[in-house]
Amino acid sequence: MLICKVVGSVWATRKEDHLNGLKFLVVQPYLTSSKTNKKHAFVAVDRIGAGIGDQVLVVQGSSASCVPATEKLPIDALVIGIIDSIDYAIGDPDD
Amino acid sequence: MLICKVVGSVWATRKEDHLNGLKFLVVQPYLTSSKTNKKHAFVAVDRIGAGIGDQVLVVQGSSASCVPATEKLPIDALVIGIIDSIDYAIGDPDD
Amino acid sequence: MLICKVVGSVWATRKEDHLNGLKFLVVQPYLTSSKTNKKHAFVAVDRIGAGIGDQVLVVQGSSASCVPATEKLPIDALVIGIIDSIDYAIGDPDD
Amino acid sequence: MLICKVVGSVWATRKEDHLNGLKFLVVQPYLTSSKTNKKHAFVAVDRIGAGIGDQVLVVQGSSASCVPATEKLPIDALVIGIIDSIDYAIGDPDD
Amino acid sequence: MLICKVVGSVWATRKEDHLNGLKFLVVQPYLTSSKTNKKHAFVAVDRIGAGIGDQVLVVQGSSASCVPATEKLPIDALVIGIIDSIDYAIGDPDD
Repeated sequence: MLICKVVGSVWATRKEDHLNGLKFLVVQPYLTSSKTNKKHAFVAVDRIGAGIGDQVLVVQGSSASCVPATEKLPIDALVIGIIDSIDYAIGDPDD
Repeated sequence: MLICKVVGSVWATRKEDHLNGLKFLVVQPYLTSSKTNKKHAFVAVDRIGAGIGDQVLVVQGSSASCVPATEKLPIDALVIGIIDSIDYAIGDPDD
Repeated sequence: MLICKVVGSVWATRKEDHLNGLKFLVVQPYLTSSKTNKKHAFVAVDRIGAGIGDQVLVVQGSSASCVPATEKLPIDALVIGIIDSIDYAIGDPDD
Repeated sequence: MLICKVVGSVWATRKEDHLNGLKFLVVQPYLTSSKTNKKHAFVAVDRIGAGIGDQVLVVQGSSASCVPATEKLPIDALVIGIIDSIDYAIGDPDD
Repeated sequence: MLICKVVGSVWATRKEDHLNGLKFLVVQPYLTSSKTNKKHAFVAVDRIGAGIGDQVLVVQGSSASCVPATEKLPIDALVIGIIDSIDYAIGDPDD
């Protein structure tokens, strides 16, 4: 899973079937102390009420379809948790 | 999912079985304000009528096979929505 | 899917079961006008008769196992089409 | 699988269903002799008791759901082993 | 599939269930003539007897679980062939 920050949302009226009602958020992979962040923003579905500015855990790939409500949906990224805190025990993981 | 712009289309007469009739679009991952765009263009199947210049949501990986019409097809990218608008709430996600 | 050029072939006598008889091609992701091509060559299975120099569509990941003949085989890339032509409508997708 | 070092842990109260009780670790892909390490830290589930500083094997993608306890869970990374030792036989794999 | 060279092996006593008895090799993606090799080494399971220095074909992702013996195992890379030879027909695929 990637640690991301929610930075926006996407609106699309014309969609594949079965995607109506889903919330699409723009999430930015987020590294607490990295000076250069090379990972690009992408779009994830949210079902747990994440909002702009929240730090979230995002699952990618076909695992995003592993919850009953999203099973069989053509999505490849899902917000699975809203992060309370992150403990880094050994300095900076991206140094 | 990635935010992409439709930039072209691909024609292939000789194909794996079951792929006849599908529309193959060249899509370019798109970041509204990024100065450098390192992600490469790739090819996605479209079933919802996307056209050249449209901004679209593209699902990648085996999740692209999660709609009845594409299930069991050997494709790894599918246009799932035509984007109306994107709201960025916290500056530029790629700064 | 990626647009690739077939640049070679791989021979392996000792293999996992069920892979005998498959043709393994070295394919190079290909971008018509990109000056720098950072994607590496990789190996894809071909069942439709692609040859050296052909421009092909290659599906990656577990979707490569989505055709009856390859289902349940441990492969992660498959040639799904031999490209006749590509139309780029909006300049160069990789500028 | 990637060789990683456990560098932290993540706490999230609000989560997708069925994820309660799982331990989420921040893991850093780790290369014994590489001077530059471009791979980013990410978050993996641990069920075998890995701790801060441990060198671990991490499986990524939907394969992370291939153990009974995690099947059908929306996770894409799992600690599958705590490394005792690594033998490099041909110099440095990243030179 | 990626063309890799076997450069080491990994030992882990504490593992997820069902992984006992599997051989874990460190493999380095290998490009015959590339001056710079940016792909990182990773760990793959081997069931066909590959040894240090061998050039091998490695399948990645959930396709690595597509052989009876590995089905349902949490692994994401598997050696599927020991390479006899590679024919490059159009110069160097990575120029």
